[in-house]
Amino acid sequence: MFERRQPIPIADAVRKIMEFQSHGVIEKVLIEESYGRFLAENLVATCDVPHFDRAPYDGFAIRSIDSREASVSNTVEFEVVDHIGAGMVSQKMIGKNQAVRIMTGAMMPAGTDAVVMFEVAQTFEKNGIPHMSIKREFKKGENVSFRGEDAKEGEVLVKKGTLINPGIQAMLATFGYKHVPVAKKPLVGLFATGTELLEVEEPLVPGKIRNSNSHMIAAQIERAGGKVHYFGKLPDEFDTCFTAVKNALDGVDILITTGGVSVGDFDFLPEIYEKLGAEVLFNKVAMRPGSVTTVAQHKGKLLFGLSGNPSACYVGFELFARPIIRRLLCVPKPHLRKEKAELKTDFPKANPFTRFVRSSVYIEDGRLMVTPSGLDKSNIIMSLAGANSLTILPGGTRGFTSGTEVEILMLEDQIGSEWPW
Amino acid sequence: MFERRQPIPIADAVRKIMEFQSHGVIEKVLIEESYGRFLAENLVATCDVPHFDRAPYDGFAIRSIDSREASVSNTVEFEVVDHIGAGMVSQKMIGKNQAVRIMTGAMMPAGTDAVVMFEVAQTFEKNGIPHMSIKREFKKGENVSFRGEDAKEGEVLVKKGTLINPGIQAMLATFGYKHVPVAKKPLVGLFATGTELLEVEEPLVPGKIRNSNSHMIAAQIERAGGKVHYFGKLPDEFDTCFTAVKNALDGVDILITTGGVSVGDFDFLPEIYEKLGAEVLFNKVAMRPGSVTTVAQHKGKLLFGLSGNPSACYVGFELFARPIIRRLLCVPKPHLRKEKAELKTDFPKANPFTRFVRSSVYIEDGRLMVTPSGLDKSNIIMSLAGANSLTILPGGTRGFTSGTEVEILMLEDQIGSEWPW
Repeated sequence: MFERRQPIPIADAVRKIMEFQSHGVIEKVLIEESYGRFLAENLVATCDVPHFDRAPYDGFAIRSIDSREASVSNTVEFEVVDHIGAGMVSQKMIGKNQAVRIMTGAMMPAGTDAVVMFEVAQTFEKNGIPHMSIKREFKKGENVSFRGEDAKEGEVLVKKGTLINPGIQAMLATFGYKHVPVAKKPLVGLFATGTELLEVEEPLVPGKIRNSNSHMIAAQIERAGGKVHYFGKLPDEFDTCFTAVKNALDGVDILITTGGVSVGDFDFLPEIYEKLGAEVLFNKVAMRPGSVTTVAQHKGKLLFGLSGNPSACYVGFELFARPIIRRLLCVPKPHLRKEKAELKTDFPKANPFTRFVRSSVYIEDGRLMVTPSGLDKSNIIMSLAGANSLTILPGGTRGFTSGTEVEILMLEDQIGSEWPW
Repeated sequence: MFERRQPIPIADAVRKIMEFQSHGVIEKVLIEESYGRFLAENLVATCDVPHFDRAPYDGFAIRSIDSREASVSNTVEFEVVDHIGAGMVSQKMIGKNQAVRIMTGAMMPAGTDAVVMFEVAQTFEKNGIPHMSIKREFKKGENVSFRGEDAKEGEVLVKKGTLINPGIQAMLATFGYKHVPVAKKPLVGLFATGTELLEVEEPLVPGKIRNSNSHMIAAQIERAGGKVHYFGKLPDEFDTCFTAVKNALDGVDILITTGGVSVGDFDFLPEIYEKLGAEVLFNKVAMRPGSVTTVAQHKGKLLFGLSGNPSACYVGFELFARPIIRRLLCVPKPHLRKEKAELKTDFPKANPFTRFVRSSVYIEDGRLMVTPSGLDKSNIIMSLAGANSLTILPGGTRGFTSGTEVEILMLEDQIGSEWPW
């Protein structure tokens, strides 16, 4: 009556996928457009930081040797011979008992090697010339930021595959990266299949529903770091689907379809893969939801056949498609980040297969707590809205009680796991 | 010698800011462009979900009443009178001992009220007409997803101010939101001041450094959810700065400057605020770094004078400017999210003032752990690259030892705190 498929373990399914499409492509973007992208090369210090000895405070730059005799009982006076702010360079060569009034960030004048902060200097005039005096010794190098103190030219400061955050933006600017080498966003083609699908702007009619999966997956592709090319929706007709999929393949890095992969009478993806000559890596995974997820490869390009069921579609994308997108973004930990958390509600359902429960993880007194984000019916898209994680409930178990430590996969995360299975 | 300013507590500073600019502006964007934006109105169910009774599995739709006599010893036969997939609607009125072969997602045919899954049906032909038989009773409503089961028309499903994630995208599509009401991104004007500043593409010269703060702050504005208008860099010259700031104010929602707010000889922002007629809310905060952060208001518009020191600038933005941006995005918890974590390294420095240490928070066995992400010298931008949090070390303390519970503010977060102070 209906085809029996052999489910394979999740780890085997992921491993089969990760054997394909292993490296990202570099593109250069303007620094102004690089925030939120992934570095495709190491960020290297192109100069020392600071690249000159500088004053870290407002005060007076002096030769420390001149302060040697200063003490509470012996005031030492200095003639203030120049006055510089950040970005200005004193042209004076500083001699015995001379000082330069200097602002934070300015370059130490030639000959000086210490900075007297305003708070400890007494200022006055003598014959119309500004002076200052101190009552303690300053050591060579005191209150000076030395060249190369923060970073040395040539050092690798941030590794390839790191997401560019505001701090890295500052570093890119410091080192003159006007054009930043980032990983090109993989282009992910997307089809939604199903005669029942209406576009979002169409009015409802009996038996039909609006196409929500492709909007959901488009957002998941974006969240993973990819770029979406939405080709539209397809009816459940073999020839239309075959032609559309075949024509789309060339222009994209990865092709995702939703629906049509089960064993229903109008599920044509298996036949489409066959006619294309694509190699099916697997068509059933020992998990819930998403067991019908099918992945095929055609000339080294991956085709993801996700379930038409919203939850199964969601989970299938995160477990199987996301890591390949992250790999193409040069990310060293491409998989969903796995952490431990305390389950805060009972989950009485028995689990013949490993189950991924859409969950909300939160923090209480520094500890991760997790609770299902809605009823766990696989057709309920409502529970996806509040989901920031998937709780992994291993197969072969009789349910879980509140307080149990469980493993979770974090969805809104940029760290990832090297291999969570 | 130099101006004495009176530092105010952090909470007072934040409170003074939050009294201004209290509500966001709605704009409608296409659903395809709404991922990652903040909802400016509640998301309301515009129809029941599902909006018709549907089959959640592949099988046969029957009238449950006809199965009443079925048992292991009494097989009941049905004539299969139609065959529908999702999106198709059967035109048949189903009579006694009739069934419709039905696929997942299809609308229940008129008269039917239960679905027999393929696994429990025996199929055969009789006089060339397809039939199936069952050996057990099916209850009214068994294996049927009823109209409104997932959501009822009119229900508020997601609250205003929520970040649109992939699950919410699916809901927006389901309910026909072709145009999504999102909070308009506040336009944040940005100037970097400092004669020492070079553009990122300029070669280094003695005494000058590349302008990194404005790239950093631009990324922080983006991370907070704002839109940046970078006006460029300004030298430390009063007239140039005054004119530039004055002219910029009208076109933006918020104006940020970096540098020029301290008490150095070339720090002109205080005088600029005065000449503008702006009311200075505060010009010194009891905190490190960022104590010189100055905030003023001019006709209800906020001007943030951040320090020119990268770390102070970074912290000043996150504590004072971010919450106003989030408020304008309709977010109910606009402040940095505060959580507890275990300090994993000693921090021996005494703290006369509350200190915000750039830190890396990570998870170990379900618990938050935090460690400073670099040396805590306030001029070191390097430590910002690895920072995903700020550890709060309260003032009046003599340092902290590893293992202590500390409070942290999370930087890469969309949850926030209502009021963390």
